[in-house]
Amino acid sequence: MAGSPSRSASRRLQLPLLCLFLQGATAVLFAVFVRYNHETDASLWHGGNHSNADNEFYFRYPSFQDVHAMVFVGFGFLMVFLQRYGFSSVGFTFLLAAFALQWSTLVQGFLHSFDSGHIHVGMERTPPPLHPPCHAALASGLAEAQRPASLTPLAPPSAPNPSMINADFCAGAVLISFGAVLGKTGPAQLLLMALLEVVLFGINEFVLLNLLGVRDSGGSMTIHTFGAYFGLVLSRVLYRPQLEKSRHRQGSVYHSDLFAMIGTIFLWIFWPSFNSALTALGAGQHRTALNTYYSLAASTLGTFALSALVGEDGRLDMVHIQNAALAGGVVVGTSSEMMLTPFGALAAGFLAGTVSTLGYKFFTPILELKFKVQDTCGVHNLHGIPGVLGALLGVLVAGLATHEAYGDGLESVFPLIAKGQRSATSQAVHQLFGLFVTLLLASVGGALGGLLLKLPFLDSPPDSQCYEDQVHWEVPGEHEDKIQRPLRMEEADTQA
Amino acid sequence: MAGSPSRSASRRLQLPLLCLFLQGATAVLFAVFVRYNHETDASLWHGGNHSNADNEFYFRYPSFQDVHAMVFVGFGFLMVFLQRYGFSSVGFTFLLAAFALQWSTLVQGFLHSFDSGHIHVGMERTPPPLHPPCHAALASGLAEAQRPASLTPLAPPSAPNPSMINADFCAGAVLISFGAVLGKTGPAQLLLMALLEVVLFGINEFVLLNLLGVRDSGGSMTIHTFGAYFGLVLSRVLYRPQLEKSRHRQGSVYHSDLFAMIGTIFLWIFWPSFNSALTALGAGQHRTALNTYYSLAASTLGTFALSALVGEDGRLDMVHIQNAALAGGVVVGTSSEMMLTPFGALAAGFLAGTVSTLGYKFFTPILELKFKVQDTCGVHNLHGIPGVLGALLGVLVAGLATHEAYGDGLESVFPLIAKGQRSATSQAVHQLFGLFVTLLLASVGGALGGLLLKLPFLDSPPDSQCYEDQVHWEVPGEHEDKIQRPLRMEEADTQA
Amino acid sequence: MAGSPSRSASRRLQLPLLCLFLQGATAVLFAVFVRYNHETDASLWHGGNHSNADNEFYFRYPSFQDVHAMVFVGFGFLMVFLQRYGFSSVGFTFLLAAFALQWSTLVQGFLHSFDSGHIHVGMERTPPPLHPPCHAALASGLAEAQRPASLTPLAPPSAPNPSMINADFCAGAVLISFGAVLGKTGPAQLLLMALLEVVLFGINEFVLLNLLGVRDSGGSMTIHTFGAYFGLVLSRVLYRPQLEKSRHRQGSVYHSDLFAMIGTIFLWIFWPSFNSALTALGAGQHRTALNTYYSLAASTLGTFALSALVGEDGRLDMVHIQNAALAGGVVVGTSSEMMLTPFGALAAGFLAGTVSTLGYKFFTPILELKFKVQDTCGVHNLHGIPGVLGALLGVLVAGLATHEAYGDGLESVFPLIAKGQRSATSQAVHQLFGLFVTLLLASVGGALGGLLLKLPFLDSPPDSQCYEDQVHWEVPGEHEDKIQRPLRMEEADTQA
Repeated sequence: MAGSPSRSASRRLQLPLLCLFLQGATAVLFAVFVRYNHETDASLWHGGNHSNADNEFYFRYPSFQDVHAMVFVGFGFLMVFLQRYGFSSVGFTFLLAAFALQWSTLVQGFLHSFDSGHIHVGMERTPPPLHPPCHAALASGLAEAQRPASLTPLAPPSAPNPSMINADFCAGAVLISFGAVLGKTGPAQLLLMALLEVVLFGINEFVLLNLLGVRDSGGSMTIHTFGAYFGLVLSRVLYRPQLEKSRHRQGSVYHSDLFAMIGTIFLWIFWPSFNSALTALGAGQHRTALNTYYSLAASTLGTFALSALVGEDGRLDMVHIQNAALAGGVVVGTSSEMMLTPFGALAAGFLAGTVSTLGYKFFTPILELKFKVQDTCGVHNLHGIPGVLGALLGVLVAGLATHEAYGDGLESVFPLIAKGQRSATSQAVHQLFGLFVTLLLASVGGALGGLLLKLPFLDSPPDSQCYEDQVHWEVPGEHEDKIQRPLRMEEADTQA
Repeated sequence: MAGSPSRSASRRLQLPLLCLFLQGATAVLFAVFVRYNHETDASLWHGGNHSNADNEFYFRYPSFQDVHAMVFVGFGFLMVFLQRYGFSSVGFTFLLAAFALQWSTLVQGFLHSFDSGHIHVGMERTPPPLHPPCHAALASGLAEAQRPASLTPLAPPSAPNPSMINADFCAGAVLISFGAVLGKTGPAQLLLMALLEVVLFGINEFVLLNLLGVRDSGGSMTIHTFGAYFGLVLSRVLYRPQLEKSRHRQGSVYHSDLFAMIGTIFLWIFWPSFNSALTALGAGQHRTALNTYYSLAASTLGTFALSALVGEDGRLDMVHIQNAALAGGVVVGTSSEMMLTPFGALAAGFLAGTVSTLGYKFFTPILELKFKVQDTCGVHNLHGIPGVLGALLGVLVAGLATHEAYGDGLESVFPLIAKGQRSATSQAVHQLFGLFVTLLLASVGGALGGLLLKLPFLDSPPDSQCYEDQVHWEVPGEHEDKIQRPLRMEEADTQA
Repeated sequence: MAGSPSRSASRRLQLPLLCLFLQGATAVLFAVFVRYNHETDASLWHGGNHSNADNEFYFRYPSFQDVHAMVFVGFGFLMVFLQRYGFSSVGFTFLLAAFALQWSTLVQGFLHSFDSGHIHVGMERTPPPLHPPCHAALASGLAEAQRPASLTPLAPPSAPNPSMINADFCAGAVLISFGAVLGKTGPAQLLLMALLEVVLFGINEFVLLNLLGVRDSGGSMTIHTFGAYFGLVLSRVLYRPQLEKSRHRQGSVYHSDLFAMIGTIFLWIFWPSFNSALTALGAGQHRTALNTYYSLAASTLGTFALSALVGEDGRLDMVHIQNAALAGGVVVGTSSEMMLTPFGALAAGFLAGTVSTLGYKFFTPILELKFKVQDTCGVHNLHGIPGVLGALLGVLVAGLATHEAYGDGLESVFPLIAKGQRSATSQAVHQLFGLFVTLLLASVGGALGGLLLKLPFLDSPPDSQCYEDQVHWEVPGEHEDKIQRPLRMEEADTQA
């Protein structure tokens, strides 16, 4: 593109200067506020009287790595389906997530754990109520007086720390919003979106989890509903009436659909880890993973059924398989840690898969025509509706909670009910209220974000250059080799 | 393909209706029979006196996730090598595995644990003999009377539960069979194949493990031999004399071979987890992973050596590297939990890699010409022969088992020998008999499956449309961008 | 390529015979020397009085699997960026690593643990000082006399065993060197390079860790600096003045860059596991993962900033994103287990990302023009300079170590300082000396390796055939399907 007119210097410098500023500011704030937490600091950890196996690391790190793979591989490649936007999809995912995880460490730290003037980071936020292995065994074998200090929770539950898992979760919400505006925003705009969204994500999460006592371990509300409606409202504000000019680039090609399936499959297989990454240890984590596993399986069958049913001549549509099959993970984000039952998981997943597929087929066009929301990846179908359904399912399952069904496990799933501070019905009402708060904050935030991104000096691709890597990247040819092939063959003949 | 004649409604509706029926029936059966097991249920788990670290989840979940990645990423992408069948390869893998894991939960549940009228599901099936951490330590430190209840096995060994790991293993066997008929069957046919195969897989596994007391932790017999011969016999029944019409589509293109290598590498790296996912905790799991690791390394060198040796002008063949290098994982499926020795692992892997490569080069053509078995992925070379070799290696290593070599570990590898109920020679004979049972059940099952799939009303691709995604999928163009490129370049010039 | 003249039989047989010889010799050496270690052997493990949860497997296996994925998926696909060398990049990575991990088991075994005439292999090399879980808890609850034998370290620290993790680490160093000579060497040459490099890697590591008492848990020196300069000096000796003839093949195409991003992302997400795989259990492993996580995030922002800053018209360059964003993992390879602080991690990562990007832009051309080093993958920018920076950062952080900052944790990070055998300044000096030893051994080794690979009878691609898969592989067409498409469409019309 040597012949194309250069962008002005101010536009060319937006991305590098914004990156440098954000990274610099983050580093300064880290220097002032962020410290290792109790389990990460050499001195604090070894000062306690506990074994290495007690370290939360060994309970959470495999789950964290799965979540990490979902955020960077899963979201990144899922969006590569666009024929000419693969570099941007995977590249901006990389950039946005790398910034969001730093920034959310700070935001969540300020909100959740700013007790001692410092933010203490580690792998996971909330120490479990019955933390160390051997606790119960020892408790019955040793007199209470002999119990070493480490067997009491390592930090009071009122001061949870920000964590790598939570930072990745927040990055996931930002990437969901990215899906709604994919192809229509420049990287500097996206960084500003993340700057705002991370703050609102943190506030919403704080209101739900800490103030309302809502349960949402896999983030049906805090991650999926919030990320989707933030992005959709933002996309509404950025509505492009002339987007038709780039429509020929909005589809996939054969290979780009295969790349996108890498994203789909990695999201699908690791979703049990996503939903269970922050649940209570033991049965809670086990149950959450199992429910998610079965829900995803059922949503996959539902998606294939509906895709073939509504497809021309019974043909399957890759867009449905790539996306709707994942709705089973979203829909149990709130309830999978609860006593959903294996049947409940199947039913929820099947419902989500079918609704999501129908959404892609019938609702996405309406969303653009009637509501002027251009939703590139269909996040409304994959995260929006399934997220809301998941929140409502959480209302239902929470409302049905009984001491009989949960036994002593009630403490770790619904601590407020276990302590008698709240009835199951009251918990259900709080869950429902949490959904409204989420929708409200996401919408207000998305609108603010849209206004921010419309600032005229921000570099944004023109209507005819959407979904096009060449705006942002040095792009090599697609088929340079073809021209070279005969030449090379001859060379081989004469010189090999 | 707007101009092509539509399929009849009955054919178009086969896939959606079958998906809906199978998912509906599965959900009803789940509602009636499936419950959380002891370690997954909030009430049952918290009622016991044990720590969260005792939960089997923490010993098995990382292995499970690796197995899960192998089934969906590994098998799915390995079969993407076909130039025009990538959507179907990865898509039908997704569909088949998602159904098989639900259905096998029920089948294995009915066979293995239908004691109380319910099937109890969790991560792993058989509680280990010495389950909880701290067991031994506490046993020596605390009087027996003080031992908390949790330190005895959580369920009697006679009532193993079905599990997520076992469900994924069964899905793996179905996908091996899929490899034999890849490109020549429609998705409704494949679902019916899975419906039958999962049942027979369950029966075969039950006969081998529970009735014959055979050891087969990594499934050389139960998974690889069974899946391969089931698929090969089925492919024999479905023999297409006119397949030549689609032969031009049976090869790979450059990029499809790279996609297939994603499958190969993920299978290869996670195979140690596959073979060790169900072995006894401690040294057993450690040893199984280590043996598999070295066996795979040796099979890789063997494959490269033989591929270059038999290749034209010393050139390597991607088909060999993608497949035969994995035979080292198959061949130690039975014996890797035993005291195979590191040398034994290398020798077995090298043998498998060389035999498998030679099979691809010389035996696959014979299999089609003489035996009328059209084996798309060469599962006979990757799973069939290496599976049988692995079973025989298991016979040998079991026959050599001594109390000296295993010490107290004999209990967890060969419990019947340890209890004196069986000699090593008798164990070896049982192992050999298990191989015959597997071959018999796989062959009978594959023949039945072939007859089932030949039902004339089932939608099957015509001979000239095999290995072609367009039969089943809406397929985007391959190179739409090329046509658009010059236009876009101009747009950039004038509007950017 | 039927028309091309055949290579002579001696050249065609080089690869197969070398593979067979190396695998045969390795197997014989395994038979004679290699045995299961204490935690892997059925008899030795079960003879001890400890629980299965004590087995190192459960602390290390998830990290090992991440490292394994990095070596085979990460390095393999990162190098697929070349348009016509994808088969070789991922295939030779597979071959080299499969050989290197066997050979390094032997080399490291001979160097580190040849005490009893046998090499004992397992998952991890050095038993941690406070090995079993429940150790501390029990120690306070039970009288010392009652402590079971297993609670003392399982092997004396003076006899560490070779391990699967260390074998993979060594394979990583070989693959770094491979990156420097990528496209310009045949597979037989590469196997000889690995044969030599593994020995020198083992010696260098032994000198640093065992003789000098250097700390280098993530291998800034032992892996990255060593691998990079070994490969660069080797590439210097193999300098091809006529490489211009293959220059048209040295770039990427659109899809090959997307494949390379698979490699980048898997390296990036699992790097915290890489650096922490061998660190002390508990806080040490936790802190290492956390530091690496933040360092990588900062290097990503630094890379995007600099890439856009130096790019034409503000465009990003995929080469930078694919590579320089990973420099944050390299630069904290030595210091991430230390009390680097979260801010230190961010600062180091940002520095590495920017320096690496500038290296790709400005230094790589100089390296070829002035120093006659043709560095295909730019390993100097990704592993060389960041490795040296990482070593120097280790000098700094080690020199600042105090008893206050580390508390009792000093024992596991700097045992010699904790025991009073060395001051922090002395440790820093030793660290610096370790860097010089590494640079010396890598340079001498690379020069020797270059001379070895120049042996005239070795098969090497001609200058006009570099970066070309067809020299080594049967390569299918790229676009065979296009020709078939119209035909198939018609078939569908008439026969479907």
